[in-house]
This record gives sequence, structure tokens and C-alpha cells, in this order.
Amino acid sequence: MEKRPRICLSMGDPCGIGPEIVLKALLAVRECATLVVGDFALFEKTAKDCALDIPFDRVVYSREEALRGFEAGLDSLFYHQQLLSLEDFSYGVVSATGGRAAYESLKLATALTLENLCDALVTTPLNKESLKAAGINHIGHTEILGELTASVAPVTMFETLNLKVFFMTRHLSLRDACDAVTAERVYEAAKTAYQLTTKGAFDQSLPLAVAALNPHGSDGGLFGDEEQRAIIPAVERLQSEGLKVVGPIGADSVFHLAKMGKFRAVLSLYHDQGHIATKTLDFERTVSVTWNLPILRTSVDHGTAFDIAGQGKASAVSLIEAIKVATRYLQEGF
Amino acid sequence: MEKRPRICLSMGDPCGIGPEIVLKALLAVRECATLVVGDFALFEKTAKDCALDIPFDRVVYSREEALRGFEAGLDSLFYHQQLLSLEDFSYGVVSATGGRAAYESLKLATALTLENLCDALVTTPLNKESLKAAGINHIGHTEILGELTASVAPVTMFETLNLKVFFMTRHLSLRDACDAVTAERVYEAAKTAYQLTTKGAFDQSLPLAVAALNPHGSDGGLFGDEEQRAIIPAVERLQSEGLKVVGPIGADSVFHLAKMGKFRAVLSLYHDQGHIATKTLDFERTVSVTWNLPILRTSVDHGTAFDIAGQGKASAVSLIEAIKVATRYLQEGF
Repeated sequence: MEKRPRICLSMGDPCGIGPEIVLKALLAVRECATLVVGDFALFEKTAKDCALDIPFDRVVYSREEALRGFEAGLDSLFYHQQLLSLEDFSYGVVSATGGRAAYESLKLATALTLENLCDALVTTPLNKESLKAAGINHIGHTEILGELTASVAPVTMFETLNLKVFFMTRHLSLRDACDAVTAERVYEAAKTAYQLTTKGAFDQSLPLAVAALNPHGSDGGLFGDEEQRAIIPAVERLQSEGLKVVGPIGADSVFHLAKMGKFRAVLSLYHDQGHIATKTLDFERTVSVTWNLPILRTSVDHGTAFDIAGQGKASAVSLIEAIKVATRYLQEGF
Repeated sequence: MEKRPRICLSMGDPCGIGPEIVLKALLAVRECATLVVGDFALFEKTAKDCALDIPFDRVVYSREEALRGFEAGLDSLFYHQQLLSLEDFSYGVVSATGGRAAYESLKLATALTLENLCDALVTTPLNKESLKAAGINHIGHTEILGELTASVAPVTMFETLNLKVFFMTRHLSLRDACDAVTAERVYEAAKTAYQLTTKGAFDQSLPLAVAALNPHGSDGGLFGDEEQRAIIPAVERLQSEGLKVVGPIGADSVFHLAKMGKFRAVLSLYHDQGHIATKTLDFERTVSVTWNLPILRTSVDHGTAFDIAGQGKASAVSLIEAIKVATRYLQEGF
């Protein structure tokens, strides 16, 4: 893209560390312009409580003002929404007000990105219980974004340094995740991941790798039959269609090899398989990317950290990384 | 210990990269004295083929000569065994001669360590098929060492940088590994790991952590019941006995937290859980430590790499790390 990438940031749950890490991240980010959506009085309070500078060039109150700000070459805009009364506000507590404010910030930030005022959305943490207290019954960002953007099948990818990981299943028990390993499902999940990685930001000279389920890929069937029964047939079917897919590759080497630049991405078959790899490699630099939405969206992958909210202790490393990853996809193509 | 630690190294399968990485490691290691057990003509050939210097101070042919060498303050001894005829030797092939030579080197190296000529044993890779061709039907080092030292229950621990990981199960299918998660088994495995970590080299102010089986430790039973049914009761039983054990802790954070110095070690419940963590973090620096033997033993955790044997391409990083880890345990207590 020609113009400087514009990233929209939601503030997250106001009672958590979201506002603090937004303030900190903006002091560190140089590669894009930003528009933060939230309650300005809260950000002023957070800046004061955490001894941080206010990094915004201008506070805006409408789409038109935001657009004019970007067109004037400003780097950092704040889009104010009246969401809270500071008299009733406390850090670190579950509250309907907090849940509602987080939702409204996310909703507007999503809309502004859908309308192309911004090029990508970067989100900060929500609190499930606060959402629930506010009567919002989605379990998290991905479900809310699916609804707000009318997307039926968002796909989560984790990215940590050079390692990119898709998930065939996520919030299932490990037994149920084993049951889910069928040839059809592996085929579909690998095909989806493959199609999402045929873009500029991925090295298409490299294959997509499918992780094995059992230790050492079952060593030829010695322990477990899912490789023979499901994974190998799925990979062979994809290969017969001309897709550059390899596997099953033992989980104890597939992530290492991907990190070393051997694969464009890895399809992990269950939640912890991919989570252990990315989060042990670098917890703070693990960024969640959501594909199959009409907008590009990245996110930190930590929580609201109510226990340290408002104290100036939160690390913005994850958010900075999420902004950088979004900027890179905008520049390289996705 | 007062004296300089003495490490005994086996040569591994002669057709693999073992001799090459031994030569390379000895050029880099300064923290201990070493005794390499193998066929000297083969090491001369390997040095020539890989353009490496011979790092040994003296070649010895008996225990007495070895002891005199150490007592004379020599750093690096080679204990020659006549194991091969170089006329029949080729790199990179499965052979009974290779399997037999590897076994004999390991057997003598183990004996010399048992006899306290050396303080610890560090091993290089074996080839299962070559062992089998030589009529040795053990599946790997741990089984052979169990027999050679009359040990009934050797325990494997992986160590990568600051992360130490035990395994409740290893070469089982993932389904069978799920079935193995019973309160009794978790209790026994955690107790064994705990008892092995009450030594000087472990920080006993820190608890041992037990990993969860299901994503997020099942989030209170939302996906999977093993946490409620087996892991929590096992941990509570250990705590009631006064053992500093915590868990279950979600596998996507337990290894990260251990790496950050929060736990003395982690008990992983299945092979890939611990393998993904250690090997994605740093594949080459993953060292295998075998406890519950009468000797201290560490090992590289890679294979014979027949495809690059004799070419000078092999990395000795893993072996150097295995030697350093053994030296550290000797110095800090185990």
C-alpha cells in the first residue's frame, strides 16, 4: 500500500491494563499511524495514575475529524466516546460498566476499520465476566467480531517471531481433540490454512506443515493410528490437488523447523500443541491474528490483568508486537 | 566437589555424527576434564575427513593409564578400544559393526563412570537399527543404561536453558496418555520428580509445577474432567504431605512461567507436552538428563544424522550443552 498504514486500537476493558498498554505502546510505535477508540477522561486518569505521557496528537469526536487528522499527516489520534463516569470507576473489578465500555469501544473500532478509515484493527483484552455482567453473552473477541462483521468462520492464527501456527481445534478436551482427528477435518483445516497463506506476507516457496498427533508421528503406527488413518490420507489428498502441504511431522520438531524457516506455517491439531510452542518460545511476543474477517485484525494474547491494573506495571511488549505484525501484513499483503 | 569434574563421553554410532561432534565439543569445552571412549583410528579418520584438530592430550589403553593421565592434570584423554576395521567402514550406513561398536563404547564408558574414574557420563547418538543388526535389542540408551547399571526405574528429564521438564508418560499414543492420567499415577510421577529435585542444583524455594492436560486446565471442567478427577486430588495429596507442588497449570503458561524462574521444574503429562516446550524453545540446547541411575548421565537429544556424517557439517552445540549441564550438576549437587 502507498499511504502510511493506519491502525485502529480498541481500549479493551477499562478496569484492566488495556488503556495503560495502549499509552505505552504508542510511545514506542513508529511504523504506522494510529487511532485509539475509547473514553478520553479514562486515558487521562490512566496516564496520571501510571505516570505516563499522553501520546495523542489530537482528540477527535467524529469520523470526519478523524479523517481530517489523518489527512493532515497526524500520527496519533484519539477518538473519544463517552463511556464511563470516573466517579464510579475502579481498576481491577468486574463490572457491567466496564464490560459495556469495552464492547462499545470494540464496536466502534471495528466499524471504523470496516469503513476503511483505518486499515487494520488491533485489540486489547476483554474480561469475559464483565461482558457477561453487561449482558453481552459472547465468549470473546473472535465471536464478537464474527457478529459485528457478519463473518461465519473466523480463523485464528498465532504468530511468534518467525513461527506461524493455525489450530484445527481449540477449546475441546484433549480426548475430544483426539476424536476430532479425521481425514475430512484435517483436510478441511489444512486447506483453509493453506489458502490463507497464499498471500504476499507468507513465503509461498515453503510448504504448510501439518503436525502429527502422536509422539514421533506414532513411529509408523507403534503408538496411535491417527497418522495412518487420518493425517496421511488428508495430506496426500491435498498434495494430489497440487497444494504444497507436508506432514504429519512430529510435534517435537515441526515448530522448531518452522521457526528455522522451513515451513510457511504449521497446522496444529489441538489447542495446547500450538499454544505450548508459541508461548514457550516467547510468551509476550505471541500475537493472535484473525483471518477470514473482512478486516485485518491482530491482538495481544494476554488477559486484562486486573491484579496490576492502573499501577504502571503492565508490559506493552505484546501490544507493540501486535501493532507491528498488523503493519507488516498491510505492507506485504494478506 | 573439590577436584575438577571428569566427564566420560561415549562415541555413539561410528557411522553417525558422534565422533565429529565429540571432536568439535572438546575444542570448545573448558569447564571439566574429559575421557572419550572409542576407536582412535576412527577418530583420526573423522578428524581428517572433517578437517578438525585432534583435541586429546593423551591416548590411553587402560584404567591405570587413564587415572595417571588425570592425576597428571591432563584435560583430555582418549581411551582406545579396538572396535572397527577402517577398510570395512562407511559413514551413514546401518551396520552390525556400527551398532556393536557403539554399544561397546557405551558399555566401557558406563563402567569407567561406575568405577568413579569419571564423575559423569555424557552420551552421543545411537542408531536403533544398527543396534538391532548387532543383536542388541534395547530400544535406546535409557534401557541399555538401566541394564548396565542394574537400575529398575531410570527417569528422564529434559533441560533447555532454565526450563526443566519431567514426563509422566512418553511413548504412548495421545489417547493412551489421556487414559494414563489417574490420581495415583500423577501422584507417583510428581512425587518422584519432586524427590529428584530436592538437591543443590534445584531451587528448592520454588514449587514443582504439574501441567494441566486440557486447554486452560479445562477452565473449571468446561472441557475435560481430568483436572478435577485426577490432577487436583493428586496435587492436594502431595501438598497435604508437605510437598511444595502446585498445579494443574495450563500448559500454555506453565512452561513459560518455569522458563521465567517460577518453578523448580515442570511435570508434563505426555510426551509432546514437554517435548514441544523444550524443543521449540531451543532445539539444540535441549539436553536429556537421566536420573535414578547410580551415575549422573546427560545426553544430546538428537539422532545420528547419517545423512551428514563425516562431512564436517554437524553442530556440536547440543553436546557442548550436555557436557556443561553435567558439569553444573556435579558442581551444584544432584
